[in-house]
Amino acid sequence: MTIYQATASAPVNIACIKYWGKRDTKLILPTNSSLSVTLDQDHLRSTTTSRADPTFTKDRLWLNGQEEEIKDEGRLATCIAELKRQRRQVEEKSQNAPVLSQYAVHICSYNNFPTAAGLASSASGFAALVASLAALYELPASHSELSLIARQGSGSACRSLMSGFVAWERGLKGDGSDSLAVQIAPREHWPDLHALILVVSDDKKGTSSTSGMQRSVETSALLQHRIKHVVPARMTAICDAIKAKDFDSFARITMQDSNQFHAVALDTDPPIFYMNDVSRAIIALIVEYNRASVASGSSLKAAYTYDAGPNAVIYAPKENIREIINLIVAYFPQSQAFKDPFDLFGSSNGQPGEIPLPLGFNPLVAKKFGLDAVKNLIHTCIGDGPRVLGSGDALLGNNGLPKVIAISALNQ
Amino acid sequence: MTIYQATASAPVNIACIKYWGKRDTKLILPTNSSLSVTLDQDHLRSTTTSRADPTFTKDRLWLNGQEEEIKDEGRLATCIAELKRQRRQVEEKSQNAPVLSQYAVHICSYNNFPTAAGLASSASGFAALVASLAALYELPASHSELSLIARQGSGSACRSLMSGFVAWERGLKGDGSDSLAVQIAPREHWPDLHALILVVSDDKKGTSSTSGMQRSVETSALLQHRIKHVVPARMTAICDAIKAKDFDSFARITMQDSNQFHAVALDTDPPIFYMNDVSRAIIALIVEYNRASVASGSSLKAAYTYDAGPNAVIYAPKENIREIINLIVAYFPQSQAFKDPFDLFGSSNGQPGEIPLPLGFNPLVAKKFGLDAVKNLIHTCIGDGPRVLGSGDALLGNNGLPKVIAISALNQ
Repeated sequence: MTIYQATASAPVNIACIKYWGKRDTKLILPTNSSLSVTLDQDHLRSTTTSRADPTFTKDRLWLNGQEEEIKDEGRLATCIAELKRQRRQVEEKSQNAPVLSQYAVHICSYNNFPTAAGLASSASGFAALVASLAALYELPASHSELSLIARQGSGSACRSLMSGFVAWERGLKGDGSDSLAVQIAPREHWPDLHALILVVSDDKKGTSSTSGMQRSVETSALLQHRIKHVVPARMTAICDAIKAKDFDSFARITMQDSNQFHAVALDTDPPIFYMNDVSRAIIALIVEYNRASVASGSSLKAAYTYDAGPNAVIYAPKENIREIINLIVAYFPQSQAFKDPFDLFGSSNGQPGEIPLPLGFNPLVAKKFGLDAVKNLIHTCIGDGPRVLGSGDALLGNNGLPKVIAISALNQ
Repeated sequence: MTIYQATASAPVNIACIKYWGKRDTKLILPTNSSLSVTLDQDHLRSTTTSRADPTFTKDRLWLNGQEEEIKDEGRLATCIAELKRQRRQVEEKSQNAPVLSQYAVHICSYNNFPTAAGLASSASGFAALVASLAALYELPASHSELSLIARQGSGSACRSLMSGFVAWERGLKGDGSDSLAVQIAPREHWPDLHALILVVSDDKKGTSSTSGMQRSVETSALLQHRIKHVVPARMTAICDAIKAKDFDSFARITMQDSNQFHAVALDTDPPIFYMNDVSRAIIALIVEYNRASVASGSSLKAAYTYDAGPNAVIYAPKENIREIINLIVAYFPQSQAFKDPFDLFGSSNGQPGEIPLPLGFNPLVAKKFGLDAVKNLIHTCIGDGPRVLGSGDALLGNNGLPKVIAISALNQ
């Protein structure tokens, strides 16, 4: 008996130009274009195995070992139905193709980062789901075409289908057929750009981005101005900056757009706050780090950006990352030792938090926080798009049910 | 020998439609109109004595017992020069008038609230200065005309020259002659509207509003939209709400405009944050307090507003103030007993923080903070404009120098 199964992994992406607001909530069509950097799935990824089998009685999904309901007409069901529809087209063209579109599917997905990390897993999760089903169904679709499907699972998931720097074009059509991801540059274009994720503790449950963004659409006067006048110019400018590998412009636009997204959240009624005092202090440190650099005749050294939560993502050229980690650890002492995937801190290289602050840096711009106000630092770089993995990585066992794998075993 | 001396007190005002941005930094002409409520100077006030004397060798100023330099062409010098100019007109019309305009002045000013309270004292301070000199000089100017002078000392000071609800009209003229304060309604119109000031601890020194607002003018794309499109409509709407004593509309606009001011500060490059986690938690409590009220079929019960700092000012009908104080103290325990100027908490009336929360209120919207995260609660109401006081209240002694008065003795 043939087993019809495929496994794929997909990366996280972090936007520089933020997606905030839908013009169509069912099709997930955004009010403005956005742009993100795909992060390396060697560090952060979702992995999904999909299997089609005539003995399966219904579509089922397991996420991080727990079965989740696939709601009728929900986002998951929409994605699966569209992928089956495209499979039918394959079957119609090739008489030899097995009729997988008529079989139910079992889907098993794991994230290698804990949900508690506060990192949005819906983007990498839906991208991995679409990639694994597309591989199972042997769809001829391009990654841009697949991004149309992932978009309907979770808007920003469409940007996780490609390597490097990815734009999600707003599109103009009512059916959403032109609202898709487009690669601006592959990872190889600018390998020197690295990312540092600062996981921030928060005792406040935030507003979900899905409900928050629609409240902004309905109540923020400033969002409309952002959509019409600010984002189009910024999209052009940041694409130019990426193509020219102009970190100074890239950083400036990234920080301005993060600020403006949170400004619009605050202009919402009632207001939405995602950043807290720790987030604010990280911004103060990066602003001062850049100021001191510019004052000494150099250029910007780092860019912060915040999604719908208190965590910071800092983009910087690789050569600055050691200095930035040192700076962060000096103000936010850590109970865990820094995992150093790029081996920045050798024995003769000092330890994070113990190296003097950069020349001219004013230490009074923030206070020193208590232990683990920043819980974790993750150093990563720009990554590739979804990967189709071999059967050795499959998450479903021979019986078509999840292998018993503790989530912790998948963590690096 | 005749002593030429006058003493006046002036109130604090707290804006509902915020002033943020100048179109002329020398004349202090704002980019948009604003609207404030004058608070009762029985509770918070600046008091100023001005004396003109032929024996004085130069203009001198003492603020809270400390002599301050009057810089050439500075804001203080501008105000004093303009008041002297208007005095000269009086002298030209009346041959009997003493030539006070040719004498130097001594000015002594006290605030009855500590600077550490974080309340802007420049508005009440400049209003009291202008009022005392206008009294000394027996100027025929109306309060609106005097507001033109106070505006050049500190923009928002122009709004402290009147009772009740006061608009500062943006004006259109280049010389600023139409950028003045206008009374929308006197205090007697809506005596039921009370205010609660929550003084919030902060370990971060904020950006001064003078430099911050110009950075917003230069860098925030959203501020321009606010100036052109949002504020004009809100000014009309809030004036209508005040005239109709429509607290629901008044509260909604006040909160939206506070949010938008802070949104614009955040949209500035680099971003400006005035609110901290305590400010955010107070907003969450007021939002939930209103939500529970609306859910039970009632209307909004309170409105928060934040100036360029973490302190909250809450406007509410008097009947809700006891409930609000109770709510705040339940989440922000106080080391000092609440000073209860309106006698809301009698022996049979419960103590702040010990009365059950309002029906339907979700207690999980905020966590309970540590002692004195909110340092102080000040309950006040709408107030009148500057008062000319008798010689018994004079702050200058017979020798023309400040009487030795400890600041604490002036506190209530």
